[in-house]
Amino acid sequence: MNASPAIAAIDWGTTRLRAWLLDGAGRVLAEQRGDDGLITAREAGFSAVLERHLAAMRAPATLPVVICGMAGSRQGWIEAPYVDVPAPIDAILRGAIRVPGTTRDIRIVPGLAQRLADAPDVMRGEETQLAGAGLPATGRHVVCMPGTHSKWVVVDNGAVAGFGTWPTGELFSVLATHSILRHSLGEQPAPVIPDNAQFHRWCRQALEEGGDVSSRLFAVRAAGLLQDLKADDAAARLSGLLIGGEIASALRRYPVGDAPVVLVGSGALAALYGAALEMAGLVVRQVDADVAVRAGLFAAARQNGMIAGKEQSA
Amino acid sequence: MNASPAIAAIDWGTTRLRAWLLDGAGRVLAEQRGDDGLITAREAGFSAVLERHLAAMRAPATLPVVICGMAGSRQGWIEAPYVDVPAPIDAILRGAIRVPGTTRDIRIVPGLAQRLADAPDVMRGEETQLAGAGLPATGRHVVCMPGTHSKWVVVDNGAVAGFGTWPTGELFSVLATHSILRHSLGEQPAPVIPDNAQFHRWCRQALEEGGDVSSRLFAVRAAGLLQDLKADDAAARLSGLLIGGEIASALRRYPVGDAPVVLVGSGALAALYGAALEMAGLVVRQVDADVAVRAGLFAAARQNGMIAGKEQSA
Repeated sequence: MNASPAIAAIDWGTTRLRAWLLDGAGRVLAEQRGDDGLITAREAGFSAVLERHLAAMRAPATLPVVICGMAGSRQGWIEAPYVDVPAPIDAILRGAIRVPGTTRDIRIVPGLAQRLADAPDVMRGEETQLAGAGLPATGRHVVCMPGTHSKWVVVDNGAVAGFGTWPTGELFSVLATHSILRHSLGEQPAPVIPDNAQFHRWCRQALEEGGDVSSRLFAVRAAGLLQDLKADDAAARLSGLLIGGEIASALRRYPVGDAPVVLVGSGALAALYGAALEMAGLVVRQVDADVAVRAGLFAAARQNGMIAGKEQSA
Repeated sequence: MNASPAIAAIDWGTTRLRAWLLDGAGRVLAEQRGDDGLITAREAGFSAVLERHLAAMRAPATLPVVICGMAGSRQGWIEAPYVDVPAPIDAILRGAIRVPGTTRDIRIVPGLAQRLADAPDVMRGEETQLAGAGLPATGRHVVCMPGTHSKWVVVDNGAVAGFGTWPTGELFSVLATHSILRHSLGEQPAPVIPDNAQFHRWCRQALEEGGDVSSRLFAVRAAGLLQDLKADDAAARLSGLLIGGEIASALRRYPVGDAPVVLVGSGALAALYGAALEMAGLVVRQVDADVAVRAGLFAAARQNGMIAGKEQSA
């Protein structure tokens, strides 16, 4: 048994950080989670935040570190310039850049840019989840990665062919907090659960309407006035409407036919999307987002020679 | 010439109030505009706010007052219960209720409710604009009333057959202020003008996509990162996307064929919608919203016997 860490793997987003120590086979030896994402780290210093988490996991001073996410953005620690799609996933990982001026070997995986005139798009972090999602090396695969800014990605023979962003989580949040719908959803709407009947009904309806959600937003408010809709059900309606709308819209852009959709997510959100994708008549292959990002970071470390070969089978 | 007022007409919305003195033929003798809509009037008192505006216009103490808008909501001065659609427009106006406990004759026009299980909706104020829009007494007419919560109404032989709300103005505002798009639109985006090329391009694109707007929202941000999109053009894109999306969605629900669409609006917003409706290939008949609401309030006063017959031709 090998209990000594081979690499520290960090998923460093805008508001959150997750860190793991992995052994030479990619197994988890230690884990840390914090609210010190990009926003906090810009104040506190990226190196200081990183070293604090590494110390808490008792990482050796020489342990190399591989990072993905917003830490590599222009506002982050050091910019890891976007790789333009289409791009092979392996080549994306190999594009990791080294943080200068550190004694540790610290590298950041680049994000992706889609430089289409009418469909410009960017991602940071999801490319690493994608690399760890266990996709077959050949064939076409449509991947759904739900979140604040949900990403849908088409992978063709191991390369990212194209992708799109649906800001579903952010839409829910700004509408629930700042729009007239706040009167219907209340201060703290309960988390929506997949078997809520209102979620199902509104999701199904949205799936039939090709991604048109704006026509039904105000109905959430009107139902509060006319039908005495409860706050939790109002939240379930809005969630069903937005998630169903996202899926209908994404499937118009990236038709899947009879092929399965790969759903990379975790927790309650993955459950909602799983239910919604099944309502759309799709076969869903679920991959846990935490597992995927760890596997992707481990693959990036390997691709960049940060883990010696002899340790891989230890 | 008759310079003595026959009625005071008030359009009393959530954040704004507009007041006119009209003579017995509906001509404007005086006008007042204020920011003392429902929200302010709940604090200051509806009667006090009204009397201040009437005094500023030197209205006689016995002049009757007809009101439409949110002043008639449950949170308003006194609730004017919704009239359920379908409903003849004349009957809606005749449903005006009298404010009790006042020496003046003050009446409030009711709003409309659409009690459909899957498309509940409400309006307050637009029913009065509709009454004053000069629609023919017969035939089917589709009316577009843009705003914070745009209303689309189908009128059939003088009766409101059904309506829907698209919260386009509010979506623009919350996205520009509270979402990640605020980084692209800047603090104070310039007003969008109809001949902005980005407005046209994104509106056209949205018109072709059946009301699906969520798929392109993030592209406004990505274009800021990848294409160095200027703030004013980002605002024009978002405006084109949302207005085009609204029109595409509304036309799916209320097909118009070759018939004209009646656009009830004013100022810059009416110009944007006029351009967008023409891009959609429609014939547009524009009606000024201020003129329409005054005419509707005047008609309500007549329908309720608040203006004596002899004064009508004076």
